[in-house]
Amino acid sequence: MITSMSKVISYDIDVLFGDCDPAGIVFFPNFLKWMDASSLNFFMQCGLPPWRAWTEPANMIGTPLIEIRTQFHKPATYGEALTVHTEITEFSRKTFTHRHVVQRGDTLICEGTEVRAFCTRDPESGIVKAIPLPEVVLAKCR
Amino acid sequence: MITSMSKVISYDIDVLFGDCDPAGIVFFPNFLKWMDASSLNFFMQCGLPPWRAWTEPANMIGTPLIEIRTQFHKPATYGEALTVHTEITEFSRKTFTHRHVVQRGDTLICEGTEVRAFCTRDPESGIVKAIPLPEVVLAKCR
Amino acid sequence: MITSMSKVISYDIDVLFGDCDPAGIVFFPNFLKWMDASSLNFFMQCGLPPWRAWTEPANMIGTPLIEIRTQFHKPATYGEALTVHTEITEFSRKTFTHRHVVQRGDTLICEGTEVRAFCTRDPESGIVKAIPLPEVVLAKCR
Amino acid sequence: MITSMSKVISYDIDVLFGDCDPAGIVFFPNFLKWMDASSLNFFMQCGLPPWRAWTEPANMIGTPLIEIRTQFHKPATYGEALTVHTEITEFSRKTFTHRHVVQRGDTLICEGTEVRAFCTRDPESGIVKAIPLPEVVLAKCR
Repeated sequence: MITSMSKVISYDIDVLFGDCDPAGIVFFPNFLKWMDASSLNFFMQCGLPPWRAWTEPANMIGTPLIEIRTQFHKPATYGEALTVHTEITEFSRKTFTHRHVVQRGDTLICEGTEVRAFCTRDPESGIVKAIPLPEVVLAKCR
Repeated sequence: MITSMSKVISYDIDVLFGDCDPAGIVFFPNFLKWMDASSLNFFMQCGLPPWRAWTEPANMIGTPLIEIRTQFHKPATYGEALTVHTEITEFSRKTFTHRHVVQRGDTLICEGTEVRAFCTRDPESGIVKAIPLPEVVLAKCR
Repeated sequence: MITSMSKVISYDIDVLFGDCDPAGIVFFPNFLKWMDASSLNFFMQCGLPPWRAWTEPANMIGTPLIEIRTQFHKPATYGEALTVHTEITEFSRKTFTHRHVVQRGDTLICEGTEVRAFCTRDPESGIVKAIPLPEVVLAKCR
Repeated sequence: MITSMSKVISYDIDVLFGDCDPAGIVFFPNFLKWMDASSLNFFMQCGLPPWRAWTEPANMIGTPLIEIRTQFHKPATYGEALTVHTEITEFSRKTFTHRHVVQRGDTLICEGTEVRAFCTRDPESGIVKAIPLPEVVLAKCR
């Protein structure tokens, strides 16, 4: 049982025909695309700007994934409406853990746990590296 | 240390511009798309037909995912060539475990462990369900 | 000047981070994915079932594209809301023409004109072929 | 009949399971993704660097699309190998025309004609704008 350490914010998805595969069900990487979308939506609903508008820290590129674990419980198909329920379940110094639960009404479709880091790109070398969690994230998302 | 229980089969990927996101790196669900492609390639290299050509068992739709765990070590970008090295690390009665290692030359980019099941779709009810691993899979892929 | 021969039905899109490319703008094939989604939405809003639920004609697979022309006027990016306005501008015996206009508020982003056909797949040979426009389509969509 | 004004360069595609839709055939926006990939491959085979490595002109983002016309002749499915044959059929001051022919062996699958421009992004305003075709492009791609 996880005690939520953050708001839970929901994100609605329409499953498109083109999201489904020859088996007639959602091609699974699309569930991860929607979890990613719900992650960004989470931050924007908490009052943070889109990544391209961050100036402090400079050269912020977003929150690349370090790890994801996903369980798939039921298939979904096009024409259905899904909701991704997203929260942050852990903050550490340089990473945070997102938990996403995808439902069709009350039916659990899949769930995912992601470890992500806020990253900047050095404009000279092009190297991407994780930075300590920005204060503004802790202030707005807890 | 995993003792391989199957062949290891490699699958080459060209990273396309459209596979990358505004951070300039591969949008992570694409790594899972390529693991899925390497999974099907694995079976076809073992001598099995594409899913649409299976008649025994009837109504086979492929090997939907039950679970996936993925670690991301380094970013990749367009114009790069990656290789997915895929094997089966475990066979159980109704599921099997795929392990995928994605490299750019000798550099480890990401790795994933999938649990999948062979599934059929009931033509009347439309219900998708897991079947025992077909004998032909055990015969050809070990 | 096109005289509309059908309803105009609108479909809302949230642009996701993963829909954008390293230039920071929507990767253009996604606009065509959204036009496809708006095409299916058009038929469902007119009261037709999703493709998988059609029984008359049997073996209907949907409305594959024969031709598409698209003009791109302005870029769009993630976090923006777009609307696709879709209508049928022409019905012929075996094909119809869809027109899609994609806007961000009042700003024209892109527009597309598609020729499509209703197609069935022969269950024996697997061959996909165009059929005359079903009566129910003419009855409901004009 | 088009008289070719440039090299014709070929790009090979493996159709993946996840590129196909519930009708069992390639979801058409993927053909445009492959044409885009073949466009970038064309420039790189001509000896130009990937977009991210251009410094002259500064802030080059690539060659966004202005218009595309595509005809679809035959469906394709997963497990098949396709080749995109790409050339430049016209150079004008600020745009060029790409022609792509997609084949499975000798069978014509689809073809597309694109108008594109080389574009830069102003680092202050963020505005994307077309620039005159760089000399190096004319020198290397004709």
